[in-house]
Amino acid sequence: MPSPLSIKRTQGVLPGFEARLGTLRTAHGSVETPVFMPVGTQGTVKTLEPRDLRELGVSTILGNTYHLMLRPGAETVAAAGGLHLFMGWNGPILTDSGGFQVFSLGKTRRIRDDGVEFASHVDGRRVFIGPVESMAVQRMLGSDVAMCFDECIPWPCTREYAEKSVAKTLSWAARCAEQPRAPGQLRFGIVQGGVWADLRRRCAEGLVEIGFDGYAVGGVSVGEPEDALLRGVEDGVAALPADRPRYLMGVGDRLQIVEAVARGIDMFDCVTPTRHARNGSAFVRSGSLQVKAGRFARDMRPVEEGCGCYCCRNFSRAYVRHLLNTREILGERLLTIHNIHVYMRFMEELRESIAQGVFDRFRARVRAELRGEAA
Amino acid sequence: MPSPLSIKRTQGVLPGFEARLGTLRTAHGSVETPVFMPVGTQGTVKTLEPRDLRELGVSTILGNTYHLMLRPGAETVAAAGGLHLFMGWNGPILTDSGGFQVFSLGKTRRIRDDGVEFASHVDGRRVFIGPVESMAVQRMLGSDVAMCFDECIPWPCTREYAEKSVAKTLSWAARCAEQPRAPGQLRFGIVQGGVWADLRRRCAEGLVEIGFDGYAVGGVSVGEPEDALLRGVEDGVAALPADRPRYLMGVGDRLQIVEAVARGIDMFDCVTPTRHARNGSAFVRSGSLQVKAGRFARDMRPVEEGCGCYCCRNFSRAYVRHLLNTREILGERLLTIHNIHVYMRFMEELRESIAQGVFDRFRARVRAELRGEAA
Repeated sequence: MPSPLSIKRTQGVLPGFEARLGTLRTAHGSVETPVFMPVGTQGTVKTLEPRDLRELGVSTILGNTYHLMLRPGAETVAAAGGLHLFMGWNGPILTDSGGFQVFSLGKTRRIRDDGVEFASHVDGRRVFIGPVESMAVQRMLGSDVAMCFDECIPWPCTREYAEKSVAKTLSWAARCAEQPRAPGQLRFGIVQGGVWADLRRRCAEGLVEIGFDGYAVGGVSVGEPEDALLRGVEDGVAALPADRPRYLMGVGDRLQIVEAVARGIDMFDCVTPTRHARNGSAFVRSGSLQVKAGRFARDMRPVEEGCGCYCCRNFSRAYVRHLLNTREILGERLLTIHNIHVYMRFMEELRESIAQGVFDRFRARVRAELRGEAA
Repeated sequence: MPSPLSIKRTQGVLPGFEARLGTLRTAHGSVETPVFMPVGTQGTVKTLEPRDLRELGVSTILGNTYHLMLRPGAETVAAAGGLHLFMGWNGPILTDSGGFQVFSLGKTRRIRDDGVEFASHVDGRRVFIGPVESMAVQRMLGSDVAMCFDECIPWPCTREYAEKSVAKTLSWAARCAEQPRAPGQLRFGIVQGGVWADLRRRCAEGLVEIGFDGYAVGGVSVGEPEDALLRGVEDGVAALPADRPRYLMGVGDRLQIVEAVARGIDMFDCVTPTRHARNGSAFVRSGSLQVKAGRFARDMRPVEEGCGCYCCRNFSRAYVRHLLNTREILGERLLTIHNIHVYMRFMEELRESIAQGVFDRFRARVRAELRGEAA
């Protein structure tokens, strides 16, 4: 099977790794990479409509299998003709496997050889999900990219547990690969292995042997130190085929995105821009702004000066602060629009810098702006 | 002073009263009447942006003086250049006087001869508002129509109390009329008097003697039986000059709107469409739909078949129900869009029926649809 990713240009800024500019083909259109995918947990990117996403330049969104299988249920989404029709979004959708959420449930879940049994957070009923069930649900959702059901191990974790877990993730990946898929649906394997380079390599090699359309690096950004996070990315990427798309799951810090792109990652998702917005935090070029702060009470400047988003073109910090402080839904919505705009603009600039062969300068500028280093 | 209302056409369907089609001129543009004004309590029509209001055909909105004076405070709004600039809405705004809210506070407020002292619901501090303060705040907000500070008496209420209250409302109206106003700001008097026709008449005559740009009928829809509500409207309207705009405060039931228009009312406001939306209730031609109901779980029809709003053009009952049940903000927003659309379409049809001289048929149809009477 040919790779769904066409790589248009690369630029190496770190020994052994290359930043890549590409196009990912999916059943619902092409995606320019590196791409950031906003998270639409329950069939909506919180506070936004599909027309907002389009206007903001969002190409791809993520849906959560765990949440959607519990509410409204995969059968309901299938009855609507799939998640695209159900939520009115006709662009590409990637669904996660549900693994990350069920493993996060702690005491209420029980890991078996064939999957995980857990208590639904909605009504407490016992539910089982494993590779077969996850693939079936993702098939019913009709996503463009389905993720393998894997075990996301916590940090810290013993080497012994990580070894067993990688074996389980690989055997589950093999089960996933046998399952039927929705028309045109791509399937990605997930590299686990915690902080051990050889386990990451073993996992990646095992997945490549099974053969997937693309590969994700999972189990990073789970509490480990930042250098371990980037080592996890390097260990995963080093063992993956260069022609296939690479997706770093759950990472949304802009500095980390740039560093991961420098190491050859093509795709990102994170709740950061949307969740922070709802908590009153606006991303700006140099970091973030706590808009609820008292010092903005009569600040008639936009959230970010020079920003072209609907929020900044029309409203002041004072107004947005007022909306947040009075718990008006519009406040959360306006900051979500702003934050997604900031992320989309950031990714556009990042892609443009690779296209122009100046990714090294972009990386230096971002580090200077966000970390305060000399550019 | 000339009336800000041009009456273009009238149609009498009840003895002694005429439905009126008109245009109200304000400092921020003209308003076709009869008009329904969505409520933007705290400087936003909940869940909606100004561009949504425009798209929905909203011409005028209402702002609440009580809420805005507490948060963000009149000084902050004034620093932004007034409420229009603060909230990004350049159409007409009517502000209430704050009276209705402070009188609703019950035990925490104390009525004095010169106004009302109350405990802020935000931080408990004691605040005073009377005719002078209310006019000053509305001037700082820069609304297009400012309402006199009145006493809204409860139902039931003794004749003795109502008499004293009307005297107070009249003396406060005289104080209001002496206060300076924002450039181009219209000022409306409010007819009180409870269920006593002679008190309503006395109040209306007193207000007309002072002289206002327009007049409101207040203190209806405060729990009295429906026939008393309409008698209150008739008693108020009968004593008011025919050439001036008439505003029925707080009434938003579609049947009551039609009956009030038949009695010569030009303007309406109510939280009904927006509040019901947030509670999951969609207005449709024949009444309302509880979208959260289990029977809609896989109903792929739009909320209202044939409706042209953004919600109905793009989403199913099943999807909106899912959003409401998972408490996604988008659900409240989509139903708000739908309900406001329904109200705007309803008022358009109402105006068109007067223009065509068939308001009697429109009234009969609405009664048949909403009350189940034979048309």
